[in-house]
Amino acid sequence: MNPKRCAACKYLRRRCPKDCIFSPYFPPSDPDKFSCIHRIYGAGNVSKMLQQLPVQTRAEAVESLSFEARCRVQDPVYGCVGIISLLQTQIQKTQTLLAKTQAEIAVAQTKHSQHTYL
Amino acid sequence: MNPKRCAACKYLRRRCPKDCIFSPYFPPSDPDKFSCIHRIYGAGNVSKMLQQLPVQTRAEAVESLSFEARCRVQDPVYGCVGIISLLQTQIQKTQTLLAKTQAEIAVAQTKHSQHTYL
Repeated sequence: MNPKRCAACKYLRRRCPKDCIFSPYFPPSDPDKFSCIHRIYGAGNVSKMLQQLPVQTRAEAVESLSFEARCRVQDPVYGCVGIISLLQTQIQKTQTLLAKTQAEIAVAQTKHSQHTYL
Repeated sequence: MNPKRCAACKYLRRRCPKDCIFSPYFPPSDPDKFSCIHRIYGAGNVSKMLQQLPVQTRAEAVESLSFEARCRVQDPVYGCVGIISLLQTQIQKTQTLLAKTQAEIAVAQTKHSQHTYL
C-alpha cells in the first residue's frame, strides 16, 4: 500500500490512483474530513458530484460539502440549515435594533431643531 | 403496483411497504422532493439517517435535508453554504449601518445637550 494515499483512499482501504479524484482535496493529515463526507453523502455520490464540476471549482465544492457534512454529523436533525435559521434570527434582531435606533435619532434631531429655533 | 405509493417508492420503482420509512415525508404529489434528495444523498443514506433519528424528529430532518439537497442541485459548488455566506454579509452590512446610526445619535445627543445647557 502507498503510505502517501489520500485520506479518502485510506478510508476506503484502496490503492490511491495517480488521477484520484479525491486526492487533491483530502490530504492524509485530515482523516475526519473524508469520514464525515462519506457518512453523509457516500463516496460514490461525492465522486459523481465532483466529476460533474469544472476542476477549478472542485476545491470550493469539497469545502462546502465538507462543512455541510460536519454540520449534519453534529446536528442530525437540522444540519447547517440550523445555522441559517440562527443567522436569520440574528438579522431580524439587528434590524429591529436598527429601526429602534433610527427612531431615537429622529426624536433627538427633532428636539435639537426645536432648541435651535426657539 | 399500488397507485398510492409514496414518491420515494415510485421513484425507486418498488412496492411501498406499510412501514415505509419514506412514505410519511414524501407524498406522491411532490416527486421533486425525493428526486433531489436521492440525487445528492442517495436513498440508502437518507434511509439510514432517518432510522437513526427518533420518529418525532424525522419530519424536520427530511425538511432540512430536502432544503440542502435542492440548494445543492441549484448551486453544485456552494449549495446552501452560499446562503450562509450571503446572510453573513447581510449581517455585517446591517451591523455597520447600526454602528453608523449609533454614532449619529451620539452626535445629535451631544449637540442637543449643548443647546440645553447654553
